[in-house]
Amino acid sequence: MKAEIIAVGTELLLGQIANTNARFVSEQLALAGVGVYFHTVVGDNRGRLLSVLQTARQRSDLVILCGGLGPTEDDLTRETVAEFLGRPLELHPEALRAVEGYFSGLGRDMPENNRRQAMVIQGGNMIPNPRGTAPGQYVEAEGRRYVLLPGPPTELEPMVRESVIPLVQTWMGGNETIRSRVLRLYGIGESHLAERIADLLAAQDNPTLAPLAAEGEVTLRLTARAASEKEAWERIAPLEAELRRRLGRYIYGVDGETLEVAVGRVLQARGMTVATAESCTGGLLGEMITNVPGSSRYFVGGVISYSNDVKKAVLGVSGEILERLGAVSEPVAIQMAQGVAEHLGADWGIGITGIAGPDGGTETKPVGLVYIAVHHRNADSWVKEFRFRGDRRQVRIRAAKAALFALWRKLGAMDEGLSPAER
Amino acid sequence: MKAEIIAVGTELLLGQIANTNARFVSEQLALAGVGVYFHTVVGDNRGRLLSVLQTARQRSDLVILCGGLGPTEDDLTRETVAEFLGRPLELHPEALRAVEGYFSGLGRDMPENNRRQAMVIQGGNMIPNPRGTAPGQYVEAEGRRYVLLPGPPTELEPMVRESVIPLVQTWMGGNETIRSRVLRLYGIGESHLAERIADLLAAQDNPTLAPLAAEGEVTLRLTARAASEKEAWERIAPLEAELRRRLGRYIYGVDGETLEVAVGRVLQARGMTVATAESCTGGLLGEMITNVPGSSRYFVGGVISYSNDVKKAVLGVSGEILERLGAVSEPVAIQMAQGVAEHLGADWGIGITGIAGPDGGTETKPVGLVYIAVHHRNADSWVKEFRFRGDRRQVRIRAAKAALFALWRKLGAMDEGLSPAER
Repeated sequence: MKAEIIAVGTELLLGQIANTNARFVSEQLALAGVGVYFHTVVGDNRGRLLSVLQTARQRSDLVILCGGLGPTEDDLTRETVAEFLGRPLELHPEALRAVEGYFSGLGRDMPENNRRQAMVIQGGNMIPNPRGTAPGQYVEAEGRRYVLLPGPPTELEPMVRESVIPLVQTWMGGNETIRSRVLRLYGIGESHLAERIADLLAAQDNPTLAPLAAEGEVTLRLTARAASEKEAWERIAPLEAELRRRLGRYIYGVDGETLEVAVGRVLQARGMTVATAESCTGGLLGEMITNVPGSSRYFVGGVISYSNDVKKAVLGVSGEILERLGAVSEPVAIQMAQGVAEHLGADWGIGITGIAGPDGGTETKPVGLVYIAVHHRNADSWVKEFRFRGDRRQVRIRAAKAALFALWRKLGAMDEGLSPAER
Repeated sequence: MKAEIIAVGTELLLGQIANTNARFVSEQLALAGVGVYFHTVVGDNRGRLLSVLQTARQRSDLVILCGGLGPTEDDLTRETVAEFLGRPLELHPEALRAVEGYFSGLGRDMPENNRRQAMVIQGGNMIPNPRGTAPGQYVEAEGRRYVLLPGPPTELEPMVRESVIPLVQTWMGGNETIRSRVLRLYGIGESHLAERIADLLAAQDNPTLAPLAAEGEVTLRLTARAASEKEAWERIAPLEAELRRRLGRYIYGVDGETLEVAVGRVLQARGMTVATAESCTGGLLGEMITNVPGSSRYFVGGVISYSNDVKKAVLGVSGEILERLGAVSEPVAIQMAQGVAEHLGADWGIGITGIAGPDGGTETKPVGLVYIAVHHRNADSWVKEFRFRGDRRQVRIRAAKAALFALWRKLGAMDEGLSPAER
């Protein structure tokens, strides 16, 4: 099945926003084993959208349109696809109930304009949108499938996960079911990983096994085809177990789970808390941790100790050590981690000090040099020197991720699910 | 001039990265007054890139290709465009010097592979790349212009700003010069803004005047055409002055300047420092401030006071007030701002407390309710209640931006350049 994605919206062509919907849909289709061959962006313009649909029809089996399903005149995706296919739009009772239900949930009457959003192309089906007013829809014509989704990512993303991907799997497989599991790794490079599993990569068939590197992390995608969902998972299980046996120390999560979610899950399960002391990351680590809803259960707070005075006054870092070894040094990272855990009353403390650049680097302490410490109130502190590559933004992101992974390791989370002999 | 952007790279179709290059180039072209009508993404595949170029030739005057100029076999943009135009690639001496110079700057010899990067399509010209090995190039054929740029944003963005936009302005204007100024506003909605300048919007001609709203901010773009750069700026000046007279209280910066850069510039000019106390934003404000290189000159640090214990112990917030009014309240925001300025030794303190959601909201304190306080050590504290819409991420971003804008206002920066009568 050859897929392409068409995003409709003049705001994309003006550069006001990036086409993150195409990225998300592509990623999800790739995980489901569907190849995406083109992305197109076109403005809110009937003629140009028609020309883009003509091109898509000639080269793709599956066309996913994002955006242009709103209630105003500008939003013309629904009408233009109907015109393109030569089919009328029909009021879809279930879609109307969904749109009306959305407004009644807000305690309001549905404006007349929004009635348009309940129109479905003849022969098509509705795709529920639990987060907004615009239901999606899909329709088959001349052996091609067209899927229409609303533009706001908060609405589109759950619709893709919950409805579109299962549909696509039905369309692809005939009677086959396809299931994927993604293992997420940190702290191991892609080429090193490939060496460790060279035999598994060479022998792969069903399930398939695909590594992917991005932003300092590596993921491994296991995809199985089978007659039933149960059988697909049964095919995946032994390969997953073997990968965990070889790489368990690096696997922090599965599927869409980020490092900050994985760390939060373990902390919460153990009833433990953490506090952060950040210098070069300037609050990024706290921001990542608290981006997770419910993080107040395990994150007590942090100190952004950008100046040495704050390191001394708030965290209790020794002035003598700051003077003698400089702020970017192992002992300072340790004292930051200890200080923040003690002063803020947390089980765990994380300390990060380094040089994010572009200025401030020297021969002995270059840009990218970062010390990360993890402290537990009843144990010795752990500290490590890192040399990150990249620009200021990249150094900061890598430092924050490395700190999260260090805590995850210290939590001993990688040993869960392993027998004592395997640890 | 009709433009389109073609991004080449399989990593985009796999969803590993979003097409941020298309966003950036579109934004820059829009600022220069060029309309972008299509974005396309295609993989590292000769046949499909040829088909995309065929389509582009039929509908666009200017085709900007991003990516695929690297040294490996995968990188085939240069070769494929040459084939498409039926012209040979020629070794470009200046480009070769540039590529060799890049490696000698790193103290290394140029690998033989990189010689490919010095090949320019016959009749074309090189575009310098100060940040990487791959020079860009542009070529005219059959009345259309093709611009080839490398994929890494850190290389592409300066090349677009410094070389492509000036070239495009020459191509568009003939003898005309086009110059744009962007005024950046915060704290005023797009429709309210449009009312305040309705007469100027109606009368616009040269310069043109275009409002644009995004992420809680509004920008106003002034674009003048003239025989010389000097004359273009002279045309812009009186309109800019009139806009500043009417809207000066909302204008925090020009062109690419963000709120955090504008605030940092003013703090640094006055020799003042700031510290942050964040609850619901969890470090995001500190992260934004410290994302600016050199921010250590005016940012001393911050406290992420996620728990009430930290608010009390580290910031000195009154336990009685926390008990009686709750953490999300005006007095707590004020005490956070005061406490962080005092304890961290800064001239200014910012306090943010609120409910980012999705959980934690109540009837009287709903999700999106945020209190922001700004404190100066010699003055009364300022505090304001906000009710932000959107999801957790949006509420947090809007709160951090509102806090930056509040500080910018309290700094009195909007009065700069105004006569006392205008203040």
